[in-house]
Amino acid sequence: MKNRIQNQTFLDRIMTADDAAAMIRNGDIIATSGFTGAGYPKAVPEALAQRIETAHAAGDPFTVRLLTGASTGPQLDGALAKANGVAFRCPYNGDATMRTRINEGSTLYLDTHLGQVAQKARQGQFGKPDVAIIEAVAVSADGTLTLSSSVGNTPTWAQIADKIIIEINTWQNPELAGIHDIWGGIRTPPNGQAIPLIRPGDRIGSGTLSIDLDRLAAVVMTDEADRNAPFAEPDGIARQIAGHVMEFFAHEVKQGRLPPSLLPLQSGVGNIANAVLEGLNSSQFENLTGFSEVIQDGMLSMLESGRMTVASASSFSLSPEAAQRINDNATFFRQKIVLRQQEISNSPELIRRLGIIAMNGMIEADIYGNVNSTCIMGSRIQNGIGGSGDFARNAFLSLFVTPSTAKGGKISAFVPMLPHTDHILQDVQIIVSEQGLADLRGLAPVERARAIISKCAHPDFRPQLQDYFDQARQHSFGQHIPQHLPAALAWHQRYIETGSMTG
Amino acid sequence: MKNRIQNQTFLDRIMTADDAAAMIRNGDIIATSGFTGAGYPKAVPEALAQRIETAHAAGDPFTVRLLTGASTGPQLDGALAKANGVAFRCPYNGDATMRTRINEGSTLYLDTHLGQVAQKARQGQFGKPDVAIIEAVAVSADGTLTLSSSVGNTPTWAQIADKIIIEINTWQNPELAGIHDIWGGIRTPPNGQAIPLIRPGDRIGSGTLSIDLDRLAAVVMTDEADRNAPFAEPDGIARQIAGHVMEFFAHEVKQGRLPPSLLPLQSGVGNIANAVLEGLNSSQFENLTGFSEVIQDGMLSMLESGRMTVASASSFSLSPEAAQRINDNATFFRQKIVLRQQEISNSPELIRRLGIIAMNGMIEADIYGNVNSTCIMGSRIQNGIGGSGDFARNAFLSLFVTPSTAKGGKISAFVPMLPHTDHILQDVQIIVSEQGLADLRGLAPVERARAIISKCAHPDFRPQLQDYFDQARQHSFGQHIPQHLPAALAWHQRYIETGSMTG
Repeated sequence: MKNRIQNQTFLDRIMTADDAAAMIRNGDIIATSGFTGAGYPKAVPEALAQRIETAHAAGDPFTVRLLTGASTGPQLDGALAKANGVAFRCPYNGDATMRTRINEGSTLYLDTHLGQVAQKARQGQFGKPDVAIIEAVAVSADGTLTLSSSVGNTPTWAQIADKIIIEINTWQNPELAGIHDIWGGIRTPPNGQAIPLIRPGDRIGSGTLSIDLDRLAAVVMTDEADRNAPFAEPDGIARQIAGHVMEFFAHEVKQGRLPPSLLPLQSGVGNIANAVLEGLNSSQFENLTGFSEVIQDGMLSMLESGRMTVASASSFSLSPEAAQRINDNATFFRQKIVLRQQEISNSPELIRRLGIIAMNGMIEADIYGNVNSTCIMGSRIQNGIGGSGDFARNAFLSLFVTPSTAKGGKISAFVPMLPHTDHILQDVQIIVSEQGLADLRGLAPVERARAIISKCAHPDFRPQLQDYFDQARQHSFGQHIPQHLPAALAWHQRYIETGSMTG
Repeated sequence: MKNRIQNQTFLDRIMTADDAAAMIRNGDIIATSGFTGAGYPKAVPEALAQRIETAHAAGDPFTVRLLTGASTGPQLDGALAKANGVAFRCPYNGDATMRTRINEGSTLYLDTHLGQVAQKARQGQFGKPDVAIIEAVAVSADGTLTLSSSVGNTPTWAQIADKIIIEINTWQNPELAGIHDIWGGIRTPPNGQAIPLIRPGDRIGSGTLSIDLDRLAAVVMTDEADRNAPFAEPDGIARQIAGHVMEFFAHEVKQGRLPPSLLPLQSGVGNIANAVLEGLNSSQFENLTGFSEVIQDGMLSMLESGRMTVASASSFSLSPEAAQRINDNATFFRQKIVLRQQEISNSPELIRRLGIIAMNGMIEADIYGNVNSTCIMGSRIQNGIGGSGDFARNAFLSLFVTPSTAKGGKISAFVPMLPHTDHILQDVQIIVSEQGLADLRGLAPVERARAIISKCAHPDFRPQLQDYFDQARQHSFGQHIPQHLPAALAWHQRYIETGSMTG
């Protein structure tokens, strides 16, 4: 314990998770560390969930409002959702039990651009947090924290919460020290200033976080691992999509529109992202860089191979094997990786300046290339918009990737109209499915429709999409973006009624 | 002429508009100055329209692809559209004849975020312009241009076009010299750098524009006035909306969430914007600033009264009376106004850093607060997204304002679902109609619906909206954003069929 905590005030505040959780009251706003299942507190939320269950068993109301960096893990979102303990959740969730609570209407969910959460919180948009719960790996003699496997919104929570609870996690390697870069230059307008970062690997801030010791309420020891998900092995479809992306990059370089080392890469997670990153790792492109919100297995492999020179993010999203590699080689990775606040990793200013190549998954696109990333059939949340809005709008190139069908061919990823829009057509430049790549740059809406139907849609759905497009051109109120409203959402309604979009 | 043109190369290239227009060929990409009806070329486009009409009369094909800053005027968009001379239009149009061509499907229209046009053009997304046509007020001895009443994308067009045609407009006051600020620091990624601007009035670049004299193809003299539209007098509804906005600002200042001088204001045009600016001009707020894409009559009055200290934009959008005031008092206004490239006036980096208060109009919002700014009934373009996306997403506060009904009560501005989305709910923080103001900050979707229905919708439509919401909660696939798809677009279809949304 002493080798993790060198500061006496911290040592004095050590207590059990149960005692720390006892400080949390019904109705409190809880703001935690954690982003994509990395660096979230574990022991105190589990103890809190127990408290809530006990209260509910006794007939007493007990819920909290939960703010985080992004998704967390079973000990936090999972346990609190299971206990029916969360009245309000923001800004992102990936937990299955919490998803159920949101979609049954028992938890309110405010799905928010991840790069904007901290500013909105400082403005008071979510109320003043009563308690911040923050995971760290060590505390120095002067009381500064070395954070763990994510930075997220932690600096902001520490700044604005009434009380601070720190979990020191001994599972995490203390040699992560030096991987973090926390910029202290964020000022509320009208006192804003430029973010002094011009290369993905620039370090512009401090490696540690200072907190106000007067608000330090508890220190809890834990040694639980992050939620790390098994590596999503690319399948044939993912590799076909990756192939189209590789071909596109090579073409852009040949045309002089991208440099040979491309531009800093942002990538989502999952098997398509892994296939694309695998493709890049065995490609002709060299000296690649990453500027993303998460670092997944693929980027780690590229850093190890030297194909990628540096990667910047706010967090990790790793398989257990890859997490172990980080832990085993922390001194190597902390020179190649920078973890930042999510308002820096996802900053529109930096995404535009650096010229990011953004690659994100999606649920569906309409024939004009608007994208739905979040709401199945328009109403049921999958995860959330995350950083996709931060990146897609401001990227140098904005790609969206998806298999052309889902549910064994019963769902088409390309539909007449979206029942929910996350990315407007202006922010969607390139769409890739296993069928092909539609380069939509410079095209007007009806040209986009022809490209998407012919290049991306599955052949089984192409005739139906073409039928809708023809019908729309015939019946539309205007011909700028032709629509036939009575038929526009029929595919989705059919799926709701029959379990299939096919007629 | 000599007092406007001091450079011999320019003098040598003077010719008639007809001769200059003769350089333009069928299929050419034409890139012009001009933004919101200010500073666009007039003589050459009119001559070009004549040429096109002559060609068409002879049975010859002749169309061009037209790129601008934003909307222009009757001599450019109007004349070319009347001649059926535009195959492709980008990035924004406000001309009625051009609108007809787009909505009948004879002109393709790529409606683009105004802050992104220049970068996309440099990337080659719209093809390489054959001819740039640029309005200026004067040329110095060393051949640098003083631009006229807008900057728009002019520096980029001058940089990338094969040929450059300059119109010297003697109607514009040459004492505009000094009002422009053209930043030369824009670099293609990976060589991007921070924009060194931290206050709305900062001057970071040059007052004039240098062009490559080797590509100077023609100089044409003109003295036509800008398209200036009559002042849109606020009516009772506009003043009610402005009243709600004033009350909201006062409340935010009282709560300490805004400073007493507010934050830099962005405002659209029209009678509601004029009412809000009038309200501010007779308010308790002092030392206001503007950071917008256009300066309209209201901001001009605030600069004259001293209520506003400085205003930054890319252009003017004025009544003839106000344009005359600028011309008469150019030396006063050039100290209070900075005109910038639209990639600077609309920069996400600066909008976020400065903490803009964005106020934009809209066509309609759904009950969850997604906004349609562009497409009537989802398919018929009105004008375009303009800068609203640049500002709404990155603003400190993002307001959307609208009367609650249109067409004498036959259309509700608040509907169950949008047939076209421009601004997703995450980017819409506050909605104001004459009925009231819905503060949506921190609210989950179903809470947003209750606020919008009860605060903003017209009482005549509230029961029907509540019916949809109830029905949606009963039938929805998920309860995150409840929807009942078979009824979602029924109001719009009813309007298309009957001319009214009411049942």
